[in-house]
Amino acid sequence: MKALVFQDNQLQLIEKPRPVPVADQVLIRVKWAGICNTDLEITRGYLGFNGVLGHEFMGIVHEDPAGQLQGQRVTGSINLPCGSCDACRQGRVNHCIKIKVIGIKARDGAFAEYMTLPRANIHRLPAEISDQEAVFIEPLAAGIEIVEKNHLKPTDRILVLGDGKLGLLTALALWAMGYHIHLAGKHQHKLKIVRQLEIPTFTAETISGNFDVVIDCTGSVSGLEMALDLVRAEGKIILKTTITKPIALDISKAAVNEITISGSRCGPFEPALRLLRRNKLPITALIDCVYPLEQGVKAFARASEKGVLKVLLKIF
Amino acid sequence: MKALVFQDNQLQLIEKPRPVPVADQVLIRVKWAGICNTDLEITRGYLGFNGVLGHEFMGIVHEDPAGQLQGQRVTGSINLPCGSCDACRQGRVNHCIKIKVIGIKARDGAFAEYMTLPRANIHRLPAEISDQEAVFIEPLAAGIEIVEKNHLKPTDRILVLGDGKLGLLTALALWAMGYHIHLAGKHQHKLKIVRQLEIPTFTAETISGNFDVVIDCTGSVSGLEMALDLVRAEGKIILKTTITKPIALDISKAAVNEITISGSRCGPFEPALRLLRRNKLPITALIDCVYPLEQGVKAFARASEKGVLKVLLKIF
Repeated sequence: MKALVFQDNQLQLIEKPRPVPVADQVLIRVKWAGICNTDLEITRGYLGFNGVLGHEFMGIVHEDPAGQLQGQRVTGSINLPCGSCDACRQGRVNHCIKIKVIGIKARDGAFAEYMTLPRANIHRLPAEISDQEAVFIEPLAAGIEIVEKNHLKPTDRILVLGDGKLGLLTALALWAMGYHIHLAGKHQHKLKIVRQLEIPTFTAETISGNFDVVIDCTGSVSGLEMALDLVRAEGKIILKTTITKPIALDISKAAVNEITISGSRCGPFEPALRLLRRNKLPITALIDCVYPLEQGVKAFARASEKGVLKVLLKIF
Repeated sequence: MKALVFQDNQLQLIEKPRPVPVADQVLIRVKWAGICNTDLEITRGYLGFNGVLGHEFMGIVHEDPAGQLQGQRVTGSINLPCGSCDACRQGRVNHCIKIKVIGIKARDGAFAEYMTLPRANIHRLPAEISDQEAVFIEPLAAGIEIVEKNHLKPTDRILVLGDGKLGLLTALALWAMGYHIHLAGKHQHKLKIVRQLEIPTFTAETISGNFDVVIDCTGSVSGLEMALDLVRAEGKIILKTTITKPIALDISKAAVNEITISGSRCGPFEPALRLLRRNKLPITALIDCVYPLEQGVKAFARASEKGVLKVLLKIF
């Protein structure tokens, strides 16, 4: 099968054997996949991953040894915990010390014609969710994770910082949960996507502070500093930005103003499926363009351009 | 003006002078109002209230000394805190020790042709919310208060106990916030209202336990005992039922299973307005019938019948 891999420090389209599902796994024929900033980071050396990239996808179950899922439209959650370490036994499976993550850590991902996944990771797609929308379930779940881990109040004034894919999807997820969301970003064509839902938007020039909750989705070294300026005393900052570069930061503001800063990562799929079923979200407005898998290297180049939103791979 | 009052231990329609708005108040011409179980309880002696009943309403601003709200469609939040006691100064205004509550405590309510309300309590109604829907904002806000005060997770399995008005509205509010809601009740015609949203419903015969969160909206002495049977160890019980009768209860289950029990009362209006604007909720399906104000005593008799949902008063 064809697969888009990162190996020998290079992104390349190769031929490799179709994987074979072992016990409790199914074989998925991948139909659509999305390029995430994490994928771009990996091609710059992040996490030292080698293998098939890709963790946002939907497809059709091609082979299910147990039969029940055969032919079903599915997506899949991305973490494969070991099930036996301390964290796993305490139920904190996303913090498994031996975790494998598809397309990110020690496990081939979705930018290929076929992939295997444990049955426990599979989520069937309801008919109301289109193929293209389904690719956004994983990043939408990452937005929901904020509410999974933190108590956000219906009366909180919440600011999402950053109008990239993560910022927009976080704003859409929290909007669909009824929250009082605001979005600050740099690009009018991106801010416009959420303005149709009457989410107030700001730029660096028009934003000013005192939000109860500020969510840093900037992906920038300056995101946390901005968040500290914009959050009220005793407020919450949620860190979605994963910046590996060291940042120069005056953290004393957090101490003096008694700010809580909480990191947040990937999230639960079922609530994301519920939100997409219950709400009309302009999620496909985030699609910049579509490439066939064969042009995957070109698709990555496009996704790396400044200001480009979601680039999809259509695999069959 | 005509007003439906509870005085001399009796519910009666009387003529009384139209109230005059003082500083920072507006005069509202009440258009629609809803009868709540609290109103029924008051006519049975609850809280010792005397005066015009009613706290669920919408109307038109008839007189605004400052002018801005003149002619606007509005509803109003029901608590009038003193602003100067310890609780008020700490921002916990709903727990003001000198609080007045329209139609409930020391302040005339909405079952009258006119009422006054401080400007701070007024909420303008957006065009998307119909007059009849607006009457439900107050009880919907009471459902939202659960999330305002407690951390409910998107992955929590949540059970609402009770298919009365409060149970149904709580289920609808949490559904609109994306939560994984289940409802247990006794009446198929009530359970049907939420089943159209694919909320799974149960009766006493079909329900079984292990929910992460159980919300007691039964209004019954047995509600908390049932909740203790249905919640998982380390789960949460939210108490919405206000039963003044003493209940016989084996509370040891709560200790042994490390259950958290939290009371919850009335809630914030703005998030309720947002939910009604963002979601199509079958809220008017809760209306049993409509009476003119003149037939208010009859309306109360109807509202007191077993199994009857919301009875509305159409005032003009």
